[in-house]
Amino acid sequence: MPESDPRAVTKLPFWVDVAQRAEAAGFDGLFLGDVLTLQAGADKHLSDAMDPIVIMSALAAVTSRIGLIATASTSFDHPFHLARRFACLDHISGGRAGWNIVTSSNALEARNFGLDAMPDHAERYARAADAVDACLALWDSWDADAKIADQQSGQYLDPAKIRRVDHQGPYVRTAGPLNVPRPPKGRPVLAQAGSSEAGRAFAAARADIVFTVQSGLAEAQAFYRDMKARAVQAGRNPSELCIMPGIVPIAAATKDEAEARLAELNSFAVLDHLIAKGSEFLATDLSKLDLDAPLPRGLIDQAGNQASQSRVAVLVGIAEREKLTVRQLLARLASGRGHLLAVGTGAEIADVMEEWLDAGAADGFNVMCPVLPGDIQRFADYVMPVLRERGLTPS
Amino acid sequence: MPESDPRAVTKLPFWVDVAQRAEAAGFDGLFLGDVLTLQAGADKHLSDAMDPIVIMSALAAVTSRIGLIATASTSFDHPFHLARRFACLDHISGGRAGWNIVTSSNALEARNFGLDAMPDHAERYARAADAVDACLALWDSWDADAKIADQQSGQYLDPAKIRRVDHQGPYVRTAGPLNVPRPPKGRPVLAQAGSSEAGRAFAAARADIVFTVQSGLAEAQAFYRDMKARAVQAGRNPSELCIMPGIVPIAAATKDEAEARLAELNSFAVLDHLIAKGSEFLATDLSKLDLDAPLPRGLIDQAGNQASQSRVAVLVGIAEREKLTVRQLLARLASGRGHLLAVGTGAEIADVMEEWLDAGAADGFNVMCPVLPGDIQRFADYVMPVLRERGLTPS
Ligand SMILES: Cc1cc2nc3c(=O)[nH]c(=O)nc-3n(C[C@H](O)[C@H](O)[C@H](O)COP(=O)(O)O)c2cc1C
Ligand SMILES: Cc1cc2nc3c(=O)[nH]c(=O)nc-3n(C[C@H](O)[C@H](O)[C@H](O)COP(=O)(O)O)c2cc1C
Repeated sequence: MPESDPRAVTKLPFWVDVAQRAEAAGFDGLFLGDVLTLQAGADKHLSDAMDPIVIMSALAAVTSRIGLIATASTSFDHPFHLARRFACLDHISGGRAGWNIVTSSNALEARNFGLDAMPDHAERYARAADAVDACLALWDSWDADAKIADQQSGQYLDPAKIRRVDHQGPYVRTAGPLNVPRPPKGRPVLAQAGSSEAGRAFAAARADIVFTVQSGLAEAQAFYRDMKARAVQAGRNPSELCIMPGIVPIAAATKDEAEARLAELNSFAVLDHLIAKGSEFLATDLSKLDLDAPLPRGLIDQAGNQASQSRVAVLVGIAEREKLTVRQLLARLASGRGHLLAVGTGAEIADVMEEWLDAGAADGFNVMCPVLPGDIQRFADYVMPVLRERGLTPS
Repeated sequence: MPESDPRAVTKLPFWVDVAQRAEAAGFDGLFLGDVLTLQAGADKHLSDAMDPIVIMSALAAVTSRIGLIATASTSFDHPFHLARRFACLDHISGGRAGWNIVTSSNALEARNFGLDAMPDHAERYARAADAVDACLALWDSWDADAKIADQQSGQYLDPAKIRRVDHQGPYVRTAGPLNVPRPPKGRPVLAQAGSSEAGRAFAAARADIVFTVQSGLAEAQAFYRDMKARAVQAGRNPSELCIMPGIVPIAAATKDEAEARLAELNSFAVLDHLIAKGSEFLATDLSKLDLDAPLPRGLIDQAGNQASQSRVAVLVGIAEREKLTVRQLLARLASGRGHLLAVGTGAEIADVMEEWLDAGAADGFNVMCPVLPGDIQRFADYVMPVLRERGLTPS
């Protein structure tokens, strides 16, 4: 977009601007995704990705209230490192750290870490569960008052309040204890976006926040009900599990202006890149299809191990519900990758959010701004005041 | 010490204060060591250790000139992660990142990462060489002008300027390329502190900075000559390898005040902890010895795989040169762990530094302040003006 700096991603002032605008606007948290490779079609789109823990650590120093949710994969990092890094981020931010737990599914990621391919889906989740359990044990290896730091006696720690963990899981071993004190909040907030059977079970048992791609209200309600029921089955209070669908806001002073902005955004989409991205998401080669015909049937069953089955289901759902051609579906992918798209005035976008909150489809939203930092500011200017007026923002 | 906050280590304002004072004083860099476990006697001394990459990333946001040298071990982290994190730190700091490469030697560290013991010394260095070579290839996988970011054409990267690395070493495989652009300086500054035969060979071939424990001028000169000769043998310009012994400055307005401060510092040393630390460094159980007798002979030969042979040699050297009892050696260990101890006025400390610089024993110093941030300020107030007057600080 003309307004955006195409070289911003490696520059700290860009990230500081994003974080400070989001904090000033009243967002609860900032979420930074991650992928451990250049992806297909990297030369055609913003494809370099800064390490989230580096960015979030820097942002901890220049923000004071906003949550800092960094993505990290359990597939290539030892839980001792993961637990320690997130504990440190929680310390330096005064309890604002969050971890978006992912398992990585891209074969290019595997190859960067010396594997020929990713382990299969079930094994990735089994390792993730093992790794997170090890992290939980490590975070719990210090009592909150284990540090005495008594200058008179010279006693620094109370050994009775620090424990080895001796975690011996199927994938992970660690002796512990951690070498940093218990994090301010006890542990970072845990976010997860699994949508498969294994992913849902994992999130229902362990996550505080579930990110999810939903674009139809009925499907979102069904997902919401399913996740809350799983939380109850896992012995948890369902209100502890916060369901946060993504929403892509295109906010402007009038509906027409918002529609024009959406059209402008879509005009910058690169068809080749969309075909590559869509092919990856749907695990099917879209370049071989007639772009002006409807999406062929049977794509859900074809999606194999490496694809996200839920992403396939969402895209196929949108195409069928809205009777889209392949080309039209690709445009939808451009503007939000299948997430709920809300185009309009602040009140119109707030209406959609309120409807989903009231209908039991969401506890909150992952607001996915297409252009940074501009769309954070637009959300702050147009949507936040309405949400605040309606009592829909946290106090 | 009464002046220090014994709870400072987990608090960001403490680190910001340290970094900003060091930057204002004119230090070239800030160096943060690391160990991946609580160590023996953890309850008696400041033993929790924040992840250096988290701290240095935060400090990148609140400093503008000082180098940020973070320690990371090659034994437990994949080079793709290491290369990426240090590249990101280099980006957000505008080219100020440094990596102190360590191999980890403590069995407790091994157990936190699921091993029963550390691999032996030779294997650790073989892995370190493989890992650093993989990192060098990854940093080199993008040309400096690979990012086009052309808003008109939509072209983001020039694929001809980004290469796979396909590193296949004895320990490490990675396909690459890295998913972040070439770091501003091409790569982070590489620091290393190996003193064994393998460690020296490693540093001479790859490091920009060598940290070293030296307390006698003659030994320091011999080390300096040896390292420069190795650099030449490795085909490098010896001035590219910067030898930086540690120096522990106890600076005050008068010599007497400085001596009194050293005595005060030593009075806070905890004997039990010193015995544990000394036993670890010397790989011998000091609690079984007569503390008021001289150090027994033969300790160098006893030191096995897990101990640092050079550290043993330094401590034994101090004890023999200064004819110290075990108890007196432990006091020396308390005030600087065997590094060069310089007690006096700014001019007296500058004299020692100048002597070492002139005598071909050092290219610079790793200034190891006993109390933070107080001794940075004392060094800034007493020593820096003298060094500056003598033209011994970088312009
Ligand atoms: C909002 C959202 C953000 C996600 N962020 C990441 C990410 O940053 N990195 C990643 O590897 N996967 C990410 N994913 C993928 C999920 O972790 C997960 O793999 C995907 O939703 C498919 O679910 P499944 O793994 O249970 O099949 C994200 C998914 C969603 C919905
Ligand atoms: C000034 C200095 C700082 C060091 N910092 C660390 C550190 O932070 N973490 C670590 O594991 N080892 C550290 N070491 C140990 C060295 O990396 C190295 O293992 C040691 O000097 C022994 O050399 P060798 O490994 O060649 O036997 C340090 C050594 C020195 C002299």
